[in-house]
Amino acid sequence: MSQKRVYLFREGNASMKDLLGGKGANLAEMTNLGLPVPAGFTITTEMCNAYTAAGGRMPPGLMDDVRAAMAAVEKDIGRRFGDAKDPLLVSVRSGARFSMPGMMDTILNLGLNRDTMEGLHAQSGEARFVHDANRRFIMMFSDVVLGIPKERFEHIFTGYKRRRGVKHDTQLGADDLREVVRDFLALVLKETGEGFPGDPWKQLEMAIEAVFKSWNNDRAVVYRKRERIPHDLGTAVNVQAMVYGNLGPDSGTGVAFTRDPATGEHVLYGEYLMNAQGEDVVAGVRTPHPIRDLNAQNPKLYDEFRRIASQLEGHYKDMQDLEFTIERGRLFMLQTRTGKRTGPAAVRMAVEMVDEGLIDKAEAIRRVSGDQLDQLLHPRVDSQALHDAGTQPFVTGIAASPGAAVGRIVLTADGAVKAHEAGEKVILVREETNPDDVHGMLSAQGVLTARGGKTSHAAVVARGFGIPCVAGCEALSIDEEKGIISAGQTQLKAGDWLTIDGSTGRVYNDALTLIPPEVTGFFGRLMGWCDEVRRLRVRANADNPRDAKQALAFGAEGIGLCRTEHMFFEPDRLPIVRDMILADNQAARDAALQKLQSVQQGDFEGILEAMDGKPVTVRLIDPPLHEFLPSYDELLQQVTELRLANNVLQGSALGHVLADKERLLHAVEGMRESNPMLGLRGVRLSIVMPGIIEMQTRALYWAACRLNKRGVVTLPEVMIPLVGHVNELRVVRARVEAAARDVLDYFKIDIPLKIGTMIEIPRAALTAGEIAAEADFFSFGTNDLTQTTFGYSRDDAEGKFLQKYVEQKILPDNPFETIDTVGVGRLMTFAVGEGRATRAGLKCGICGEHGGDPRSIDFCHTLGLDYVSCSPFRVPVARLAAAQAALAHADE
Amino acid sequence: MSQKRVYLFREGNASMKDLLGGKGANLAEMTNLGLPVPAGFTITTEMCNAYTAAGGRMPPGLMDDVRAAMAAVEKDIGRRFGDAKDPLLVSVRSGARFSMPGMMDTILNLGLNRDTMEGLHAQSGEARFVHDANRRFIMMFSDVVLGIPKERFEHIFTGYKRRRGVKHDTQLGADDLREVVRDFLALVLKETGEGFPGDPWKQLEMAIEAVFKSWNNDRAVVYRKRERIPHDLGTAVNVQAMVYGNLGPDSGTGVAFTRDPATGEHVLYGEYLMNAQGEDVVAGVRTPHPIRDLNAQNPKLYDEFRRIASQLEGHYKDMQDLEFTIERGRLFMLQTRTGKRTGPAAVRMAVEMVDEGLIDKAEAIRRVSGDQLDQLLHPRVDSQALHDAGTQPFVTGIAASPGAAVGRIVLTADGAVKAHEAGEKVILVREETNPDDVHGMLSAQGVLTARGGKTSHAAVVARGFGIPCVAGCEALSIDEEKGIISAGQTQLKAGDWLTIDGSTGRVYNDALTLIPPEVTGFFGRLMGWCDEVRRLRVRANADNPRDAKQALAFGAEGIGLCRTEHMFFEPDRLPIVRDMILADNQAARDAALQKLQSVQQGDFEGILEAMDGKPVTVRLIDPPLHEFLPSYDELLQQVTELRLANNVLQGSALGHVLADKERLLHAVEGMRESNPMLGLRGVRLSIVMPGIIEMQTRALYWAACRLNKRGVVTLPEVMIPLVGHVNELRVVRARVEAAARDVLDYFKIDIPLKIGTMIEIPRAALTAGEIAAEADFFSFGTNDLTQTTFGYSRDDAEGKFLQKYVEQKILPDNPFETIDTVGVGRLMTFAVGEGRATRAGLKCGICGEHGGDPRSIDFCHTLGLDYVSCSPFRVPVARLAAAQAALAHADE
Repeated sequence: MSQKRVYLFREGNASMKDLLGGKGANLAEMTNLGLPVPAGFTITTEMCNAYTAAGGRMPPGLMDDVRAAMAAVEKDIGRRFGDAKDPLLVSVRSGARFSMPGMMDTILNLGLNRDTMEGLHAQSGEARFVHDANRRFIMMFSDVVLGIPKERFEHIFTGYKRRRGVKHDTQLGADDLREVVRDFLALVLKETGEGFPGDPWKQLEMAIEAVFKSWNNDRAVVYRKRERIPHDLGTAVNVQAMVYGNLGPDSGTGVAFTRDPATGEHVLYGEYLMNAQGEDVVAGVRTPHPIRDLNAQNPKLYDEFRRIASQLEGHYKDMQDLEFTIERGRLFMLQTRTGKRTGPAAVRMAVEMVDEGLIDKAEAIRRVSGDQLDQLLHPRVDSQALHDAGTQPFVTGIAASPGAAVGRIVLTADGAVKAHEAGEKVILVREETNPDDVHGMLSAQGVLTARGGKTSHAAVVARGFGIPCVAGCEALSIDEEKGIISAGQTQLKAGDWLTIDGSTGRVYNDALTLIPPEVTGFFGRLMGWCDEVRRLRVRANADNPRDAKQALAFGAEGIGLCRTEHMFFEPDRLPIVRDMILADNQAARDAALQKLQSVQQGDFEGILEAMDGKPVTVRLIDPPLHEFLPSYDELLQQVTELRLANNVLQGSALGHVLADKERLLHAVEGMRESNPMLGLRGVRLSIVMPGIIEMQTRALYWAACRLNKRGVVTLPEVMIPLVGHVNELRVVRARVEAAARDVLDYFKIDIPLKIGTMIEIPRAALTAGEIAAEADFFSFGTNDLTQTTFGYSRDDAEGKFLQKYVEQKILPDNPFETIDTVGVGRLMTFAVGEGRATRAGLKCGICGEHGGDPRSIDFCHTLGLDYVSCSPFRVPVARLAAAQAALAHADE
Repeated sequence: MSQKRVYLFREGNASMKDLLGGKGANLAEMTNLGLPVPAGFTITTEMCNAYTAAGGRMPPGLMDDVRAAMAAVEKDIGRRFGDAKDPLLVSVRSGARFSMPGMMDTILNLGLNRDTMEGLHAQSGEARFVHDANRRFIMMFSDVVLGIPKERFEHIFTGYKRRRGVKHDTQLGADDLREVVRDFLALVLKETGEGFPGDPWKQLEMAIEAVFKSWNNDRAVVYRKRERIPHDLGTAVNVQAMVYGNLGPDSGTGVAFTRDPATGEHVLYGEYLMNAQGEDVVAGVRTPHPIRDLNAQNPKLYDEFRRIASQLEGHYKDMQDLEFTIERGRLFMLQTRTGKRTGPAAVRMAVEMVDEGLIDKAEAIRRVSGDQLDQLLHPRVDSQALHDAGTQPFVTGIAASPGAAVGRIVLTADGAVKAHEAGEKVILVREETNPDDVHGMLSAQGVLTARGGKTSHAAVVARGFGIPCVAGCEALSIDEEKGIISAGQTQLKAGDWLTIDGSTGRVYNDALTLIPPEVTGFFGRLMGWCDEVRRLRVRANADNPRDAKQALAFGAEGIGLCRTEHMFFEPDRLPIVRDMILADNQAARDAALQKLQSVQQGDFEGILEAMDGKPVTVRLIDPPLHEFLPSYDELLQQVTELRLANNVLQGSALGHVLADKERLLHAVEGMRESNPMLGLRGVRLSIVMPGIIEMQTRALYWAACRLNKRGVVTLPEVMIPLVGHVNELRVVRARVEAAARDVLDYFKIDIPLKIGTMIEIPRAALTAGEIAAEADFFSFGTNDLTQTTFGYSRDDAEGKFLQKYVEQKILPDNPFETIDTVGVGRLMTFAVGEGRATRAGLKCGICGEHGGDPRSIDFCHTLGLDYVSCSPFRVPVARLAAAQAALAHADE
């Protein structure tokens, strides 16, 4: 712990954020830049921790240091704290390393009491001002220090205004305010049993302690957990001489950004209010003026402010968020900090600052986060407009597929198709979706489900197709028969408007205006710079030509994962797939396979053609076959009902229906598995039931050869899923090679065979040295690898315990979102190292969902992977993250 | 490849089994020991491989070498092969490194044709003998070389006997046999379109080729796969001068063992038949005499034989299986090999041979296999008696819990209890069992199920209780209502006798006599020697006092795994467990937990008392809670039926029943998981739902303290299952410690807390260095570790693909039976090494089913584990395997 416990502003600087908090460090920095900052001091964050560690007792002697610092401030200002004649008043503010909601609010005008009010009156000559200052002080102090909710005071104040028949605070005079304060003090006495503290030093000590306490209040703790901010940072306390924006028409207060935080445009942006104290600007009591109006009102002061703003941006080399006060025509700076911004603004600022020579390209790349970039790629809800309008979500679910969508409610897939054909925009609302709903999903603007999480059918399909989706709205009830959906007290019917935001999970019962994606020139230039520095290649996961084209538009350098079975789920194919699975003889199975081959060939042609000259990795069939069949539970219910009915209606035609359903039930039952994730799927299925992968291989090479004849450059790569032992790959590889060579021989075309494997089972990673002997490439399936390494079923874990694990810090992150570098990452490290020891230069990539997660991409970079593959809409984010990783590890 | 392709017997020795096969090498060894072995030669196994490699063509020039060798034999014997005057006849036999069913049978009397028959007549002076030899030769040669099934010839022969009205072959004279041979030759002509080959050299070449071919016949290939015998060993061919046991009453043939292969008693054991050729002894044409009768018949010859037998046993230092022929009073040895023996015999022989100074203790330990030892520990079916009686199994299933049991069929658990109370022995036959059947299983001698594998409920519970069980008899149909079970054409009813053999999976519809377990003095002495050399300690998995006592009796040095939830499944507890799970308020849950605590305390007292002074590792609750609830499918059916019925009978009392069932269905549905193996269980459950493990901890330490007061030394160890991250263990460990300390403080007793974890998730093994910081010991749960490392659900894999994987050699073994040392073993190696790097001397054990598998135990030894833990009945096998491992790796 440092010896010094209280720093005057002139004793600190911007680098001391850990000790002085963000606000304190910046106030110190501005002071030392010679800017007009009211004098003050900062109590260090260490004092907060000492307070907490001592079980909520003020560190002994701290107040002595505070008195010494106050003496220095008094000397600067020329007034004394608590002086009845010419009192120094102060503001007290919390200030942690990171700004954080839930922390103690500001207390202004601290130091006022019966005596100092007289002095303040003498100083300002404004009786109303004095009583207004006192009113504000008592309310704020009582709220945050004494714990009497602000609303109680506002209630008194509003009542008084109503009785006096006025609307605005400013319409009340000094005497009115005195009366209000009398009522305030009576409330305090009643609630606390004691009078309001009159001693300024007592007030100050209580305020400081309240700041320390607020560090551990519930909201702050929850926020820190969510944002992964350590709990032992502590907060600093800033005590600063008051300046007054409410001393008359030549006083005022305002906030401003050095650039437009919404668009990024390089203009001074903000607002101010004359004759007002800080909180009035945001409280909406009066409408503030845009900052440019200050130019007309007071050009000299505006110029001074603009110069300071520009100086601060140049000094910090980033857009600043400023607070200022004008006291009787004199400008004071109260805060500067790096300003928050939208995604589009972040991109534009980063690029323009490079143009302006403020930062270099590397810094521009570092400046933009993946989340910010992602905002550019989807339509989005205008959150500012929503906030302004006070619009609340109708219901909230899981943000399952990003982007926002507006449409009318439809409750069936067929309904969605019909409405779509009629030119209507619809949101498909389902309990949960299944393969039979896919055509409806494709016809809808967005999908909303009441059940299922991020890996539910709805979520996976929607992400695949780039359709916004909110899943698992547990509070939503759907009555398909009556055409009604409801949540809480609100009931909506089919045809009503809905807006879903798949980036936040919020659902609004209104047709909101959406902001379209902004893939601007700034975006393109930033991406170009990213491509210059990154080493990782970026591919996309795409299962159909549409996605492939989208991926290409976003800069994908190939397809890293084409899930062939997704093609099976489309409504025109599912019946053929079912025929194939349920065939009771080889001829029937072959006939179904033949049909599937021609549709798959068509899909492959579309994808390969779209990716002309770029590699396309096709994963052979992966899921267990029962995923293509009707649900066992539904069949069981149907059969149970039919049996009962058949008992009653002996001899009716029902008997045949029952017999058919029973056969189907029996077939589905035979394929049921206790743990399908760990059952008959992937390469295991291909070994036990030959035929499907041969069909898929033929379809792929047939497509490639046909395109080849037309001059398209095709680079197919075949990927075998779920390999755990090299022998599995050896056996299946031979069959794939034979099927491919048959086609290539027929066409007399020589496309080099690239046959690789997914590494998605711990044993595959542990024996990668053996497996590499049979694999032309490795692709890490980190979804499954995470499931098996942790022994988690993602479907079960996310709902049942994973959230709690992250909340309780048992796990640092959800390992399905960010790669667990310690466990899963260790396996990946083995696999890359030992795979390449067997086969020098073995191409290694990743095609799990982690391929689009920036922190995971950073790990992939350090691991020396060749590429990451992610969903088309994540490709730009991946390009950015890959560049950031290259920069971060440039020296290693 | 060696240059020499054909070895005379005198040119080989016993160490050349790879090249000459077992039979050839032993014939050579006997020849060189100076024993009376008819001259002959062996064609090497390499010739067989050369034949196979050439696509089934005889190696060029091989027959020249054969002719040269034959010349040497002719010189020894003084007769010439194919000589019409005084012909040399030979036998041709296959002989691989390991004896193997399905390989070519013997051909005797090869070299006979119209000319040599004359010569043989001249030699022997016996016309009948000559025709009989010819009959046998033609039948054998036609069967194995020409591929005309033996049965066709036997049919002719039997018909002839019937027409002649005789019963025994010996009742037919020379003329009869000549006629039979005429018919035989006609059959050959008809089947092959060619006459029977007359040229002796042609016969020989064809016979040699037939031996080579038989190496790759289906039966041999299947056998080698099953027995893990490499396919490229090849077989040798032995060609040996004939001696004749059927030259009259002073000739004969026999087989003998140097000790009794059934009991191990040190007596010459075997049988012989005068005036017979080899096959007659086993064919059961006439009843052979016990070998001791030879002493009365021909003491000199018996003495000679006994001397030779003794010499061979001393030479090979193991019990020998001998074949001999007496030709006109002269003894010839035709074979010696190490004899097969039963488990009890293996143990007795090993111990007695040490006493006799023939072998040392280490060799005695090596001599006995785990399977042999296991035979001593369970009642077993007398397989020799079965074979003699020709009794066939009624149906065959999976050998799920070893040992045999006899009882009457009962079809319900309650029925089993009632019958048991009435003093009847019963076999409980169920479609499959569930927790509601446990009381019935405990009342039965054995359990038979139609569905489920080695990890089914029936199998796991039966093994736990040491009850024989045959599971998954797919061919068995059970009609509980009618009280009938059937398989194929056979139908049995409740009350009929059944014998099940849980060691082989066979089920007989008869009350067979069982051989009781033979835990003799020999067993005890062998175990004692094992204990002297082994380094691994052996514990048992036991969930109740009965098992603990059984384990102790078999020499367990502690309990390595006490599965606390198994106590929950017992019928008197299950309702309390369900109350606990379904409780909708904390008070109800606490009340149920309180009840469970007292029953668990009772269980723990019993176990801890039984293991006085030995450690007892208690695993806290592991399975997902839905395992304790009724099946979702059954509830769904019931609710569906009730709903329909309720629609019809509006307003009846059915409504309440339906509502109750619906609530239960809803509760069960809420707990359903897609992949329960990877869901909310183990430590995850304890973190999300506190209370159960605190209850279990209190029950355990309460039990320990009470016993402690009575002077029992208790060493409880608490084990946390399914840990994947050190934080899980940290959080739960603290709770367990607190609960334990509460009890210890109350009793003012200081029992050192030992809290460890299972390593059964890849991530636990990969981060064992971190986890060891919080663990007092590691116990490898290799069942789950294998499931997650391979990504296999055992329940699904064994039925759906694992068997094929082993058959097709994709996997060398079923990894659930024998540890996969490459993948799973690598993780274990990390865990032991890194765990001990964090915590020196960290105690490491294994409690998966592999703990009772000898090959896995060998791996555990090399890994440096401290102990293995297995089911009580496997404890002796584990002690043996641990000793064998210590011996095998003594030099490392």
